[in-house]
Amino acid sequence: MFEALELGRRVKHKKFESAETELRHRLLQAQFELAERPYPAIVIISGVEGAGKGTVVHRFNKWMDARLIDTHAFWDSSDEENNRPFYWRFWRAMPAKGRIGVFFGSWYTKPIVDAALGEIDDQRLDQELQRITQMERLLTDDGTLIVKLWLHISKRAQQKQLAHDIKTKRQNLRIPDAQAAFARLYDSFAGVSERAILKTDTRHAPWHLIEAEDPNYRDLAAGEVLLRALHEHLRRVPANEPAKQPMSFIEAEQPTILDNVPTNAKLSSDRYKRALRKYQERLQDLAWKARKQKVSCVAVFEGWDAAGKGSAIRRITEAIDPRLYRLVQFAAPTDEERAQHYLWRFWRQLAPAGRATLFDRSWYGRVLVERVEGFARHDEWHRAYAEINHFESQLAAHGLVVMKFWIHISKDEQLARFKLRQQTPHKQHKITEEDWRNREKWGDYELAVHDMVTHTSTSQAPWTLVAGNDKHYARVQILKTYCKRLEEVLDRPSNQDGEVNPNKATDA
Amino acid sequence: MFEALELGRRVKHKKFESAETELRHRLLQAQFELAERPYPAIVIISGVEGAGKGTVVHRFNKWMDARLIDTHAFWDSSDEENNRPFYWRFWRAMPAKGRIGVFFGSWYTKPIVDAALGEIDDQRLDQELQRITQMERLLTDDGTLIVKLWLHISKRAQQKQLAHDIKTKRQNLRIPDAQAAFARLYDSFAGVSERAILKTDTRHAPWHLIEAEDPNYRDLAAGEVLLRALHEHLRRVPANEPAKQPMSFIEAEQPTILDNVPTNAKLSSDRYKRALRKYQERLQDLAWKARKQKVSCVAVFEGWDAAGKGSAIRRITEAIDPRLYRLVQFAAPTDEERAQHYLWRFWRQLAPAGRATLFDRSWYGRVLVERVEGFARHDEWHRAYAEINHFESQLAAHGLVVMKFWIHISKDEQLARFKLRQQTPHKQHKITEEDWRNREKWGDYELAVHDMVTHTSTSQAPWTLVAGNDKHYARVQILKTYCKRLEEVLDRPSNQDGEVNPNKATDA
Repeated sequence: MFEALELGRRVKHKKFESAETELRHRLLQAQFELAERPYPAIVIISGVEGAGKGTVVHRFNKWMDARLIDTHAFWDSSDEENNRPFYWRFWRAMPAKGRIGVFFGSWYTKPIVDAALGEIDDQRLDQELQRITQMERLLTDDGTLIVKLWLHISKRAQQKQLAHDIKTKRQNLRIPDAQAAFARLYDSFAGVSERAILKTDTRHAPWHLIEAEDPNYRDLAAGEVLLRALHEHLRRVPANEPAKQPMSFIEAEQPTILDNVPTNAKLSSDRYKRALRKYQERLQDLAWKARKQKVSCVAVFEGWDAAGKGSAIRRITEAIDPRLYRLVQFAAPTDEERAQHYLWRFWRQLAPAGRATLFDRSWYGRVLVERVEGFARHDEWHRAYAEINHFESQLAAHGLVVMKFWIHISKDEQLARFKLRQQTPHKQHKITEEDWRNREKWGDYELAVHDMVTHTSTSQAPWTLVAGNDKHYARVQILKTYCKRLEEVLDRPSNQDGEVNPNKATDA
Repeated sequence: MFEALELGRRVKHKKFESAETELRHRLLQAQFELAERPYPAIVIISGVEGAGKGTVVHRFNKWMDARLIDTHAFWDSSDEENNRPFYWRFWRAMPAKGRIGVFFGSWYTKPIVDAALGEIDDQRLDQELQRITQMERLLTDDGTLIVKLWLHISKRAQQKQLAHDIKTKRQNLRIPDAQAAFARLYDSFAGVSERAILKTDTRHAPWHLIEAEDPNYRDLAAGEVLLRALHEHLRRVPANEPAKQPMSFIEAEQPTILDNVPTNAKLSSDRYKRALRKYQERLQDLAWKARKQKVSCVAVFEGWDAAGKGSAIRRITEAIDPRLYRLVQFAAPTDEERAQHYLWRFWRQLAPAGRATLFDRSWYGRVLVERVEGFARHDEWHRAYAEINHFESQLAAHGLVVMKFWIHISKDEQLARFKLRQQTPHKQHKITEEDWRNREKWGDYELAVHDMVTHTSTSQAPWTLVAGNDKHYARVQILKTYCKRLEEVLDRPSNQDGEVNPNKATDA
């Protein structure tokens, strides 16, 4: 594969100068056109050490309007980053709609380096590459253009370049005998890189291999690849959404998963008080234990309007030291959030290791309100099931305990609560026209919840359907489940040393 | 996930009968519409043992025109199949354009069973699932509709069903205490199935989960899913191909990989004779040794018109016992081949273990003649690189030795040979108008060869560029490379017992 990139391709200086002028002009035009579009572009600059990745990044910033470019170098990861799932650092750096993100190093760097150094085997590498493919697919499904450049130089050229860099101290070479080390590793890197390129050279995010020995050729070729990719993407007409076929041969009134919820389960006041105290005390201890063992929780709370989400969450937060949790509430997305993939605003809220994040409403809005209200197209909310599973599997793989609660009440119970709110002065603000409108779509929501549970209740991130007509019962059910899930993880022997992330071994 | 499929959904008999009539009518209409289209549909029926997969297959055959359906049950694999890469059995069964293939068991069966029985671990399972995703993507990229049904019943229902089956001897239950065995394995299968479904629930080939306890509900739901999928697919307008942007900022005359070929390398007549004898004798032995060790070869021969492919191949076939090789020549595809994915006609030619298949022209036609002549669209030939790599990696993973030769001659040498052919009566038939026309596109072909080698010369299936101006030199270079590649594999210690496929461990 790489032998075709050691041919001595070059561009004479004179030619370079005239071509550069025209190329810059066209790149700028394309960039301004992109700025008006509802999607960003990501340019990944990868390749052999010493091939001039940095210079290409410089060029791109020089050739185009740097104000519309976000350049990110993914060097060593920070504590902040290590305490969260691997992709968190990339979500942080995601360009907003209309912008170009230039990634110098990327999600490819760590898997390739780890494999080349023999720290992970081929199967593990393949798993990481599959995750990359899914990540890239998620972005391109959302309209993002991904341009992947691989810059190649020969072993000989690398040695020459390193000798020069060491002499001029241009590189931050932290290894003592860097030249010899790179020479030793060159072939190992080449083998792993070939595998990585082959397995991730997809139709939606193809690789572009560039011979990088002559800087003139390298930079023009890189610019040309970017320009072509922008051009094609800007001119692409999305495939039309097929007309839905509303037809069913099955009686409308089929049971849903919600019919299984024992909505009317009750707890007497006495038993409630005892259980509340018991589980809150237990949770208090568990939260500290989790902190010590660096186990994080992600708890999602969804439910019907007036189901009692807020008061149930409060019973949890009362029990946990405020330094150990964060409560995040979601309403309509901000402008900044709207300029990103819908999962972006949830990624940014993830707490570091040893804490809990409680989500009052969550990414499931995509498949609930956005589906029912038509804010997301059919293909958008439907592919969200896979995207959400992919997201949650990354959380679980990083050792986070993922819990999801749907608080279910009957339609009658909701009506009673709505009326009570209207009659109670200090609760009137909690009931709006929108609540009544949502109520009219009860059946649609029921179907959406059923489909949501069908597609996203997984062993690594199961849904708990909470019987909510009796608030006491619901609160205790949630607290109990929360404690139980946490205990399952904290009791694992591998976790006793207080250092290891528990689920890391069961990487999904 | 599966808890949402144990709700007791059912359809009353009366409703079933009226719905069935309408559903059949519409399915037939859709089927006839599909018959006119340039792509097939594949329906995969999977799910829990005892859920009624067979009955659903029956229904589909009854409801639709069975003459346009190919039903395949993938039971235990035959010797024929075990001697070839895993996907060979599925390529054999691939429906032609306009037809519906109903797969009862599929590429999902073996990985799921192996994982549930603990024969492969999660990482290995994920690798298989990734391969499935790639396979499905390859088919859907080509226009194929893939409908995947998962039929679910509860553990209790399965036990009931098995008791009934054993009593009525309806199933071919080969395990003595089948009921107990299935009960033991139910949860293990559920866990693995969830993982498999989650990892392969892609946008292009999504899963449809169906509660299967009530046959009426199950069959109507299955039929409805199929009908909807057909409807949507038949109405889909493919995304338009973006206009190509013919622009380049780099001088046209850049070196290609072909410039590295020492075209004029020569071998004297004496040295040629000695070398020919030496390598042919060695090859003769190696072919038998390969037979004994069950190592297969796939050798691809490509090159310019008049490069001497035929005579070079003859030097190989002379050396090998005719029982140990097959020579396959490719011209334009047949009608039957044209009704399939372009890789289909190569899959069907693969020889069983211990033999060699020599391909005189090959799947590379897609990225050579079909690209240059415009027989394939840009997106078609471009994605062929990844498809070919995927194909060859399956061959390599199965232990086949893949060799690819491009015989290179200079443009002048070709002209000399063309003229000689015209002047030599018994060679005149070998030179046609087409050869002269191809010659005019020398530059386009050069670029196509360069891109082909860049994208598909991999460590598991490398290209050998043969210096062809001197036919003697070319023949010896090919024979020598052929022997060397074979020796590398046959000398591996793991292969000495004559049973193991050598590359199986380095599964790519």
